[in-house]
Amino acid sequence: MLAEIIAVGSEMLTPHRQDTNSLYLTAGLNDLGVTVAFKTIVGDNRDHLVSAILIALSRADIVLLSGGLGPTADDLTRECCAQALKLPLQRSEALLQALLQRFSARNMPMPPNNARQADVIAGATILPNPNGSAPGQWLDLAFNGHRKLVALLPGPPRELKPIFDTECKPRLAAALPQNHLARRMLRMALIPESQVDARTAPIYQQFPDVETTILAGHAEIQLHFLCVKPTIAEAEARVEAVADAVAREMGDDIFSLNGESLEEVVLLMLGVRHRTLAIAESCTGGWLGERLTAVPNSSRVFLGGAIAYSDRSKTALADVPCYLIDEHGAVSDAVARALAEGIRRRTGSSLALSITGSAGPTAPRGPDASKPVGLVYIALTDGEDTQVKELHLTGDRDRIRLWATQHALELLRRYLQ
Amino acid sequence: MLAEIIAVGSEMLTPHRQDTNSLYLTAGLNDLGVTVAFKTIVGDNRDHLVSAILIALSRADIVLLSGGLGPTADDLTRECCAQALKLPLQRSEALLQALLQRFSARNMPMPPNNARQADVIAGATILPNPNGSAPGQWLDLAFNGHRKLVALLPGPPRELKPIFDTECKPRLAAALPQNHLARRMLRMALIPESQVDARTAPIYQQFPDVETTILAGHAEIQLHFLCVKPTIAEAEARVEAVADAVAREMGDDIFSLNGESLEEVVLLMLGVRHRTLAIAESCTGGWLGERLTAVPNSSRVFLGGAIAYSDRSKTALADVPCYLIDEHGAVSDAVARALAEGIRRRTGSSLALSITGSAGPTAPRGPDASKPVGLVYIALTDGEDTQVKELHLTGDRDRIRLWATQHALELLRRYLQ
Repeated sequence: MLAEIIAVGSEMLTPHRQDTNSLYLTAGLNDLGVTVAFKTIVGDNRDHLVSAILIALSRADIVLLSGGLGPTADDLTRECCAQALKLPLQRSEALLQALLQRFSARNMPMPPNNARQADVIAGATILPNPNGSAPGQWLDLAFNGHRKLVALLPGPPRELKPIFDTECKPRLAAALPQNHLARRMLRMALIPESQVDARTAPIYQQFPDVETTILAGHAEIQLHFLCVKPTIAEAEARVEAVADAVAREMGDDIFSLNGESLEEVVLLMLGVRHRTLAIAESCTGGWLGERLTAVPNSSRVFLGGAIAYSDRSKTALADVPCYLIDEHGAVSDAVARALAEGIRRRTGSSLALSITGSAGPTAPRGPDASKPVGLVYIALTDGEDTQVKELHLTGDRDRIRLWATQHALELLRRYLQ
Repeated sequence: MLAEIIAVGSEMLTPHRQDTNSLYLTAGLNDLGVTVAFKTIVGDNRDHLVSAILIALSRADIVLLSGGLGPTADDLTRECCAQALKLPLQRSEALLQALLQRFSARNMPMPPNNARQADVIAGATILPNPNGSAPGQWLDLAFNGHRKLVALLPGPPRELKPIFDTECKPRLAAALPQNHLARRMLRMALIPESQVDARTAPIYQQFPDVETTILAGHAEIQLHFLCVKPTIAEAEARVEAVADAVAREMGDDIFSLNGESLEEVVLLMLGVRHRTLAIAESCTGGWLGERLTAVPNSSRVFLGGAIAYSDRSKTALADVPCYLIDEHGAVSDAVARALAEGIRRRTGSSLALSITGSAGPTAPRGPDASKPVGLVYIALTDGEDTQVKELHLTGDRDRIRLWATQHALELLRRYLQ
């Protein structure tokens, strides 16, 4: 069974916006053993959309459309699907009443345009949308003698995702041959993709029935394994076998055996070891804290810390002695050490991490003026010992800052391991 | 003139990888006054690719293909283009020699497969690729009686971009009517898209020759204006006219008249007014600091602050009295106020912002247990007055945290204005 995903919306034909729904839909289709053969992105244009739908119906068994279900004149997916399928649109009285209630609950009159959201293609099943006013629609029909499954889904991801999961996936599963899929993801930080590939290719190539994908980005490497078999036990066994063999080869370089992020792993290890963490960030300005606190319940082990951006704040918030900054500059081994030790004392945490460096694009002023952009020091202290690492990072400001946070987390992970 | 972009590569039909080249190509085409009508993503499959090329030739005047020019058996763009156009492939002796030299310069034998990169569609112009081994190809031909411009470009962005800029854009410009393009972007925070549209549509609809796009996301609304005219003066005049009229209507709600980010605007205003800023963040955990320090030279006005995540760190780093937290809970008007005032005193900044709230997914423990997820307090102090705002944010942890930082920046912007 082949699928095509059509993303509808002129904004996705500009340089500013991309279709991202199709990544989510693709993952869901793959879970069911369905391959996506085409993705089409088309604007809010009647002729273009009708022709794109007809093409998709001619070359795919499953057609998922996202977007174009809103109330405005630009929202053409309902009409164009009906036209391509040569089916009438029928206004649903129940949907219309629900729309009217939605507006009256907010004490607003409903603009007449909105009634279009109650239009349903003849024969379609209405897919309720708990997060928005435009419901989805589901069609299971014969087109030129072939069975086609067609879903119309709203464009906003928080509306599309639950409808796809709860309404479309069960319907697709019921219509498809029983296939089971297993996945596994291994993650590594700070290691070149070429090295991962050189070390792991001889292993994963022995598993031709497992699809292996190596992805590099955001200062990490991900190894994705995917296998489809008639039973889940078979699929899982194959994925486990290749993942275990690769994990043995890569050893400690792997921070996550089941897809957790580096910050999740570090927070988990801190919890298990009954340690707490504080941080002091200079050039990363809060990014390390943002990453740690993006994880729910991080407050169990993460106490907080200082954004010690200016020299004065290094002293005021983390007790870095002024003379250290004057003597060595803020971008120095000595200041990284003092930041970590100072914030640990201030917050009473068991461990503390610090980052200080030059993220560019221009060199800092003052005593650090001679130091190259990309020079970063990170430090980790447990109150007895303090480790400091000197990094020479490349790339733009954003990349240097991201890699600095990644190095800090990885330093902590290896300490806790 | 309509364009279609075809991205070739099975990896872009997985959940992990997206076509991003098309954003760059779209910007370049728009610069020339060309609209992209369709984007197609197709895998490394001969039948699928030939049919996608034939469809593109039937509905677009300009067809740009990216990817599938490498040496492996999976790289099918050359063959499939030739097949769709019913033209033969011819091996270029000059290209073959260049490939052989490339390998011998590295003391490597050339795998026989690589000779395929010397295959050229009959009649195509070879587009040199300074950053890789696969050259691009350019075709200007009649297809079913219509003139078509077709480019085959390599997939890696650092190869595609220079070839497109130096080889394709001049050829496209020569083939197109002389057009000039002007753009302008207005940005607004924390305002519903529907309200922006309701207030601005009556204005921008009076400029049918200006393409207006409203984009909502990341807690802001962007209004993009784009106009193509025979002269740059005409295009700029129209874009200025609509942008000025919309700016008058939206007034203070607009934070940026020329595309700057909210953090850039706030940092600029602080500099102009000779003020410095410190922050104290609880639930956002450093995100506000990360946003501010992502801007180069933010250190001129941004001093730093506290990631006051735990109750204890609120006291240790921003001098929030313990009894305030015990009495009111950390998620309270009183603690937001004390955080801002405390960090201002600590750092000696002229202004200070604070954020404290419940970002979910579960309610906090202790005295805040009865408070709903999404309840956030932000405070701004200048040492004399302290403003506190109570926010009721919706969505997941990530959204609540982003919106909290946006509200804080917007509170500061309006104060500085």
